[in-house]
Amino acid sequence: MDIVQFIAAKRDGQEHHRGELREFVLAAVGGAADYQISAWLMAAYLRGLSEEETVELTGALRDSGRTFPLGHFGPRSVDKHSTGGVGDKTSLVIVPLCASLGAVVPKMSGRGLGFTGGTLDKLEAIPGFRSDLSVEEFERIVSRVGAAIAAQSADLVPADGRLYALRDVTATVDSVPLIAASVMSKKLALGCPSVVLDVKVGSGAFMPDRERGQALAAAMVAIGTAEGRRMAALLGDMSRPLGRAVGNSLEVLEAMETLRGGGPDDLRGHCSLIAGEMLSAAGVARSPEDGVARAEEALRSGRAADKMLELVEAQGGDAESLAAGRLPVASLTAAVHADSSGFLARVDARAVGQAAMALGAGRQRRDDGIDLGAGVVLRHTVGDEVQAGEPLATLHASTEAHLHAGLARLLSAFSVSEAAPAAAPLVHEVIRA
Amino acid sequence: MDIVQFIAAKRDGQEHHRGELREFVLAAVGGAADYQISAWLMAAYLRGLSEEETVELTGALRDSGRTFPLGHFGPRSVDKHSTGGVGDKTSLVIVPLCASLGAVVPKMSGRGLGFTGGTLDKLEAIPGFRSDLSVEEFERIVSRVGAAIAAQSADLVPADGRLYALRDVTATVDSVPLIAASVMSKKLALGCPSVVLDVKVGSGAFMPDRERGQALAAAMVAIGTAEGRRMAALLGDMSRPLGRAVGNSLEVLEAMETLRGGGPDDLRGHCSLIAGEMLSAAGVARSPEDGVARAEEALRSGRAADKMLELVEAQGGDAESLAAGRLPVASLTAAVHADSSGFLARVDARAVGQAAMALGAGRQRRDDGIDLGAGVVLRHTVGDEVQAGEPLATLHASTEAHLHAGLARLLSAFSVSEAAPAAAPLVHEVIRA
Repeated sequence: MDIVQFIAAKRDGQEHHRGELREFVLAAVGGAADYQISAWLMAAYLRGLSEEETVELTGALRDSGRTFPLGHFGPRSVDKHSTGGVGDKTSLVIVPLCASLGAVVPKMSGRGLGFTGGTLDKLEAIPGFRSDLSVEEFERIVSRVGAAIAAQSADLVPADGRLYALRDVTATVDSVPLIAASVMSKKLALGCPSVVLDVKVGSGAFMPDRERGQALAAAMVAIGTAEGRRMAALLGDMSRPLGRAVGNSLEVLEAMETLRGGGPDDLRGHCSLIAGEMLSAAGVARSPEDGVARAEEALRSGRAADKMLELVEAQGGDAESLAAGRLPVASLTAAVHADSSGFLARVDARAVGQAAMALGAGRQRRDDGIDLGAGVVLRHTVGDEVQAGEPLATLHASTEAHLHAGLARLLSAFSVSEAAPAAAPLVHEVIRA
Repeated sequence: MDIVQFIAAKRDGQEHHRGELREFVLAAVGGAADYQISAWLMAAYLRGLSEEETVELTGALRDSGRTFPLGHFGPRSVDKHSTGGVGDKTSLVIVPLCASLGAVVPKMSGRGLGFTGGTLDKLEAIPGFRSDLSVEEFERIVSRVGAAIAAQSADLVPADGRLYALRDVTATVDSVPLIAASVMSKKLALGCPSVVLDVKVGSGAFMPDRERGQALAAAMVAIGTAEGRRMAALLGDMSRPLGRAVGNSLEVLEAMETLRGGGPDDLRGHCSLIAGEMLSAAGVARSPEDGVARAEEALRSGRAADKMLELVEAQGGDAESLAAGRLPVASLTAAVHADSSGFLARVDARAVGQAAMALGAGRQRRDDGIDLGAGVVLRHTVGDEVQAGEPLATLHASTEAHLHAGLARLLSAFSVSEAAPAAAPLVHEVIRA
């Protein structure tokens, strides 16, 4: 292909001819120059991609590596993706929860980059847990347990890895069609007939703006639908952290409580909603509402928690420690206190996330180390009545320096007001197709 | 500098802070990654640069290598740049012409890429002519002859070379501020107090659109003015070729005729206009009009032609052959004939240029060979009355294959109409500052 002409077409706002994006992706893995890929990425960022182009790009990315045939993990297999946020341990809950009710959930995740660790980092807070499974191990565990959570296999969508590495260093990450194609290429490669998306908006989200979140959800649903998948997307609130715990070990412990029917109301409610959509899409439940009811029952009954322990054990983790709530938590603690009495009007997710990062719980660069025991536990959430001097949150860190850095950041996260704040919804809307 | 933030700012249409573009250019020559430079180039292409940004970029490019102090070649030194076009042999005429009248013209040129060769290729059609002069040779010849025409020294504006190489392969060449900064950085580095720009518009020009040509001229004049140069820019017509000859040897012969007061009226008129501006800017003439009158006299008197022979001899060229009109011209010829009687309404510069290219006179890639003797000589120009069957142009090539390829292209260049066409101006406008 004439790659300069191809770049010029997007630069001038033209739609690429059918087949050209496939050629481009082939060229990208076949040795096309970084500088040409980057110039196209910037042109695509600024000029956008049409729905047809986004679908073609997604398919081309998927086909750049190994793919599982559609339905490979069975007709009841269902995939889930969250755009992530502060305290988002949803996957830890809904994967075993859905599997405990007969859905099949083969979950592959990337590493976390940003406020706190990703799902894999959180699970690795469980002693012995292995997320770097071979494809054969992954398939065996999925078929025995009904679920597995593993690091994305390197031979899946290699072209996405190539594009993502360049986007990361050329200020072209934050583009709706490029994100949609990247996420959906991995979902398509796994071959699940149903996909549920958890798109977060608000200060602690990767994409804070609600309209852009809607656009991203709609773009991903359109790609999945064009490829014959059953799709649902929830637009979830991330103006405040999800649940009370932020940090790897702390989040696993909170997820475990939630799987036993306890845990914070917002987290349990959010997980039930997502699970309801997944169970309905997978044909295990008659409707999303029926799915929610079944999910709540599985949490109450202990069935979901048992499935979590089964999954952890299958992946080499110390299920006994997890069941007993014994995970490494950083030994130094401090607290933030309310400076006046009233209602907690704001618990800013971004500020809490930055505090967790400062405490050592997240990574700024891909090869940074992570302190699995560090983080924040909120004592209160938005709407709670608090008294002056009452502790609002506990911080955990391994060094005094980290603790002080975290404290400095966390102080700005809270606002107390005289009047009770309006209740914010957990989920702004649901898109189904 | 945080280069990702820098790219993101331009991506979002922000103006860079003062100093940032200098840091970026330093980074570009200091090992910044190609893909980051390219992403910024595309963002700058699509978002544009303000006048202040363009001035800063130009200064930073200039300062990336060796510079001559302002006035190094004397107060009467004057530089000239043409954006180039089909049959544009203006430099071959105006450099010796202005020098013959007391201006100093230290001219450095790039290699031609496109329709026909550049000034250096044309001069190399003169046996023995050397354009790869050391800086010391260049200075010596300028001081003795009053002019020299050499290949741009590699240690001048190296950052421009780095950016240009990337622009060429990322579809970011055709940007007004990027072109303006690239051209003017080289002009500023040479240190002439006066600069005259010959910006061509029309089908055979690098930038065919008149409004964009105006914008480019204005941007370059603004940069020069901000840097304390006397500036003039002419917006010249390039809808038809300039003069009658297109091809390297053929153009040198035509330039020599023009220097003797002959040659085609349009070429002689255009060269006198440019020379008039240069002589006025250099303080040799009282006004551009006075400069034109002096230039015409120098052409008529043989003074300009003598200076050309002196310059050619100083640069090792065979002045005797040139004076005698003996340059290598390709031996195979063919002609294109008028298919009806009437007035020649159109001689399309782009089509003539493509024909010359097909004949072997230009290069598509930087390392292509060039046939110095190939090209086209027009027998008629726009407005001439012609008879059916009369020859309109002669083609010169070294192989039958080239001759046929050239013929096929040239046929589309001409239109004959019943009515005489309106006269098109040589120069659309002049901008002075």
